[in-house]
Amino acid sequence: MSFDRELEEKVKEIETVIGQYLPKEEGYQKTVVEAMNYSILAGGKRLRPMLLLETYRMFGGQGKVAEPFMAALEMIHTYSLVHDDLPCMDNDEYRRGKKTTHTIYGEGMAVLAGDGLLNYGFETALKAFSLVQGEEEWRRVADALSIFAGKSGIYGMIGGQTADIEAESRKDEMTENCLMFIHVHKTAALIQSAMMIGAVLAGASGEEIERVEKCATNIGVAFQIQDDILDVTGSLDLLGKQTGSDAKNQKATYVTLKGIEQAKKDVECLSEEAIGIVSSFKERNGFLEALIKRLVTRQK
Amino acid sequence: MSFDRELEEKVKEIETVIGQYLPKEEGYQKTVVEAMNYSILAGGKRLRPMLLLETYRMFGGQGKVAEPFMAALEMIHTYSLVHDDLPCMDNDEYRRGKKTTHTIYGEGMAVLAGDGLLNYGFETALKAFSLVQGEEEWRRVADALSIFAGKSGIYGMIGGQTADIEAESRKDEMTENCLMFIHVHKTAALIQSAMMIGAVLAGASGEEIERVEKCATNIGVAFQIQDDILDVTGSLDLLGKQTGSDAKNQKATYVTLKGIEQAKKDVECLSEEAIGIVSSFKERNGFLEALIKRLVTRQK
Repeated sequence: MSFDRELEEKVKEIETVIGQYLPKEEGYQKTVVEAMNYSILAGGKRLRPMLLLETYRMFGGQGKVAEPFMAALEMIHTYSLVHDDLPCMDNDEYRRGKKTTHTIYGEGMAVLAGDGLLNYGFETALKAFSLVQGEEEWRRVADALSIFAGKSGIYGMIGGQTADIEAESRKDEMTENCLMFIHVHKTAALIQSAMMIGAVLAGASGEEIERVEKCATNIGVAFQIQDDILDVTGSLDLLGKQTGSDAKNQKATYVTLKGIEQAKKDVECLSEEAIGIVSSFKERNGFLEALIKRLVTRQK
Repeated sequence: MSFDRELEEKVKEIETVIGQYLPKEEGYQKTVVEAMNYSILAGGKRLRPMLLLETYRMFGGQGKVAEPFMAALEMIHTYSLVHDDLPCMDNDEYRRGKKTTHTIYGEGMAVLAGDGLLNYGFETALKAFSLVQGEEEWRRVADALSIFAGKSGIYGMIGGQTADIEAESRKDEMTENCLMFIHVHKTAALIQSAMMIGAVLAGASGEEIERVEKCATNIGVAFQIQDDILDVTGSLDLLGKQTGSDAKNQKATYVTLKGIEQAKKDVECLSEEAIGIVSSFKERNGFLEALIKRLVTRQK
């Protein structure tokens, strides 16, 4: 089977899992649930749940315990987009070619839908406890929950988002350190979360989990630099969003700091290291290796 | 010692616990942490952590495992206020006589601070796992986490907030059922969370936890009806916020639906039942009983 065909089937498999964990659109809270589900079902690559599942499988995981975490992580990712798109943040009317949540449901409901998704992410992840037995497996779920919480919060994604907003309000001061902090936290943190949770749930060792974290960091940073590159070189049709927007906003990016050639070299270097790590484990996962290659070399 | 003196000392004790769990204001994420801590330290009755702790003690709880949950619940309560106050929600410039978070830090940072508090609430509650040993205690923490998550989300507080916003946009349709849903979810859910978590962590039985939930529901609903009554009868000085605001906003309240005399009777009835429940357990907690009496008969 071709990689693209396999990818397509795996996305479907993941969307089935996510669908099973979506809340019902009923009761007095119906509107917020509709807004939550609209946001989740508006598409996306399902990258984080996919990385979670494939890392889990690479380390020999076979049960269903990864599933609530897969859905939960997509909820966290989605809430961050809903809040990011708000008029008081990036003020985006479209995402992935579809109207953003606040454009349809209003700002107040979009704030609530984001809160609802964030909270429901934890409610969903906590369901993993009901899928395991015995102290060892319980401990894995608790460890996975800690990673899930930490990588989403102020020492993870929210921290990166904060630094990003701060940096925009004082453009002249952007440093490479600050930009790397933003990329590692805003983008890489949920990829770290995905792969580390997969590894932890499958019973990987501490040393393996550290290497997985490093691999995920590289993927996230490479992915984000590639995003900066594509913002310069891409087109509206390919990305489904207006490109050149960073330049329009005079936003400091990896490309403006280091130049496009260096940026391309760094993506390559980070990618090679990431692929090196994922290929170094005792058990291999060919699909995961191919997926990572695709991610960091994507042209859209 | 007088009740007021005891209350004051217990608030201090609780603020010390909360203080130990607040994140440090440092690093690239410093601003969001400042905004989070500003919001938490802006005051409040610390009612939810107090109810949690006193219920825990009533059922014989003596360890430190309640502490992360106390801090976590105050974080959840605080995030809900930060997001409620946003211009796209209630648009309040002051709360408890202090500037609201978005007024000081801007709207984008207030959205992030709310997200940060919500997420950090879970990070904090998860720390309880490190304070217990053995399967029985682990299970109690996991059960407490499920209550914590559920009562904060779309089937708890966020659900109530959604119904409230919806009701405001179609005032003529407000029914008693819908108003009760709002009070039970928007206000009572975190009080249920507080008291049920206290009970669960102390090892209360399923039947006891159910009665605690009923007691908390009554407290929350009575508290909210009392709020509606005070909105009509109170004054700016006593409440630290403009009163008569519901009437100004033409908001349907328990008082407008049922009349002030019936509202007062219902508060009394709900309160008596709540006090009856809390006095019915094998072990008593005189302070908790006095606190509940005070809450539901408060004049400010």
